[in-house]
Amino acid sequence: MGKINLAEKLTQFSEYWSPRTVAQLNHYDIMVVKVKDEFVWHKHDDTDDFFLVLKGKLTIQLRDRDDVHLEAGELFVVPRGVEHCPRAEEEVHLLLIEPRGTPNTGDVRTAVPRQIL
Amino acid sequence: MGKINLAEKLTQFSEYWSPRTVAQLNHYDIMVVKVKDEFVWHKHDDTDDFFLVLKGKLTIQLRDRDDVHLEAGELFVVPRGVEHCPRAEEEVHLLLIEPRGTPNTGDVRTAVPRQIL
Repeated sequence: MGKINLAEKLTQFSEYWSPRTVAQLNHYDIMVVKVKDEFVWHKHDDTDDFFLVLKGKLTIQLRDRDDVHLEAGELFVVPRGVEHCPRAEEEVHLLLIEPRGTPNTGDVRTAVPRQIL
Repeated sequence: MGKINLAEKLTQFSEYWSPRTVAQLNHYDIMVVKVKDEFVWHKHDDTDDFFLVLKGKLTIQLRDRDDVHLEAGELFVVPRGVEHCPRAEEEVHLLLIEPRGTPNTGDVRTAVPRQIL
C-alpha cells in the first residue's frame, strides 16, 4: 500500500498497447499504457471503458459517430457495447480503468496478459 | 456521451469538499473535487477510495501509519475499512472514483449530496 507516481511507472516499460496495472480499486485495475499508431476495432459487451490522457493526443474512433479527440487532462468513457478503435500519431500515455480480467481487445483470444507493475 | 476536460469542469464551481460527478464508469462515479484544509476522519467499509491529484499537494493522514504525500500525477487508493483524513495547506484539485452512492464522509448522515456537472 503506497502512493503511485504515474510518470515514474511509465518510465519502466516501453511496449505499446500493453497496459500495466499500477493499483487496484475494488475489482478494478488501474493501469497505465503507452500507445502509438492504431489499435484494433473492438468492443466490451460487459463493461464501459475509461480513458484519461496523461500525455500526448489520442483519437478514439467510433462507428457512425465523430471521432473523439483527447489531449492531456481529458477523459472519455466508451459505453459498453460500443465499437471503438484508439489511434495516436505520436506516443500517448494513458490511464485506463477496467474490471480485472477485461481483455484489452475485447476478446480473450487476442488480448495481452495483464501485467502488474 | 462526450469527452470531459477536467480543468474546464473544475472552473465551474468553487466550494471545497463537494465532489462533482463528471462521468460514469459502470456503477462508479468519476468525480472532480477542490479541497483545502482538513476533512474529517472517516472510512468506507464497503469500498476502496481512489485519489488522483490533478493540481497541488495533498496529504492523506492514516491511523498508525505514515502520512501519504501526493503531488500532481500521483494517486493513492485507501483500502476499504482504513480510516483516513485528507488535508491540504493550499487548494488541491483531485479526481475521485467511488461506487455511486458512497457517502463522502463515510456516513450518509453527514455526506454531501452527489452533484452531476
